[in-house]
Amino acid sequence: MTKARIIDAALETIKREGIVGSSARAIARTGGFNQALIFYHFGSVDEVLLAAVDKLSATRMASYEQHLAGVRSLPELVAVGARLYAEDLRDGHITVLAQMLAGSSSSPELSRQLRERFTPWIDLARGAIARAVAGTPFEQVLPVDDLAFAVTSLFMGIELLDHLDDDRARGQAVFGTVELVARLMESFAGPSAPAGDRQTGPA
Amino acid sequence: MTKARIIDAALETIKREGIVGSSARAIARTGGFNQALIFYHFGSVDEVLLAAVDKLSATRMASYEQHLAGVRSLPELVAVGARLYAEDLRDGHITVLAQMLAGSSSSPELSRQLRERFTPWIDLARGAIARAVAGTPFEQVLPVDDLAFAVTSLFMGIELLDHLDDDRARGQAVFGTVELVARLMESFAGPSAPAGDRQTGPA
Repeated sequence: MTKARIIDAALETIKREGIVGSSARAIARTGGFNQALIFYHFGSVDEVLLAAVDKLSATRMASYEQHLAGVRSLPELVAVGARLYAEDLRDGHITVLAQMLAGSSSSPELSRQLRERFTPWIDLARGAIARAVAGTPFEQVLPVDDLAFAVTSLFMGIELLDHLDDDRARGQAVFGTVELVARLMESFAGPSAPAGDRQTGPA
Repeated sequence: MTKARIIDAALETIKREGIVGSSARAIARTGGFNQALIFYHFGSVDEVLLAAVDKLSATRMASYEQHLAGVRSLPELVAVGARLYAEDLRDGHITVLAQMLAGSSSSPELSRQLRERFTPWIDLARGAIARAVAGTPFEQVLPVDDLAFAVTSLFMGIELLDHLDDDRARGQAVFGTVELVARLMESFAGPSAPAGDRQTGPA
């Protein structure tokens, strides 16, 4: 019995049962081990769930960084973001994060632990947005910090509403809309800012 | 002991303890009554929580309809929406909805019940957006259905992330950003470009 196996059982349980159903007993049943092992290795259910978030973040952060590094326009950013998000939604990663956030609402300590884990993701979004608007008329006016928080919020909120629908198609449709808004903004502000001027980096 | 008192205790409990802590025992303790009364009057905890959502929706729907009726531009819509949302966030209404959504992720029946209750809100958002863009260049190009879903998602997602912060200021700051985007779109599409020239759609 390794810690890794407990973490995998926790991930599987929160995806399938939500935070409400992610008791030590349920996680142990998913993994086929004695629930005492959770407390022996992690001390508490919250700690194994946080370790699950860490595993998930480590896996995905590298992929996001790689794909976002070359993005230089808002529509491009939305397209890449939508594709990565679709993968994470399909694999249940977004469910894990949204369920953890919901479960932390009455726990200041769990909230603090999650804030530490969300900060690098909001920073990643901020950097990508800053690169996408660099050299455009939006660079000076768009508050990149707030936009990064809004995008992260939208990612979590879509998951919550998406599972109400049987076909889960509306969540993806949202990105079509956001991309359209990005294209509208670019087309209105566009020709005056050639792409060559865009390489000056984030603000 | 009335049903109304049980509903109020359920609302109070889910705001304070989240969906994870909203057991029959916890609701009964909040209201100072025997938990058997919940099952006598409602049959299940889910049913009393759904009745709590109904009460909350009925109270707020009238206020939203009244304030949104006169809105005729995107920046105006964002300003009014931000003010109403701030009230709902402060009073814990958004917390109740986000927690219910999170709690329904593993229950198809609860998801179905919540879908019925979210549909009028998404319809309300759709109507308000449609009125705000009527007669502008955006009327023909913005998919109002998807935008309404996106706005509702954003409202839920902000609540999830907002409680990570001690000061809860970032959630409100998001609306400043959204309003700015709305103003940018309006100013680019505004007086200098007659609406008739813009009907060809995005690049």
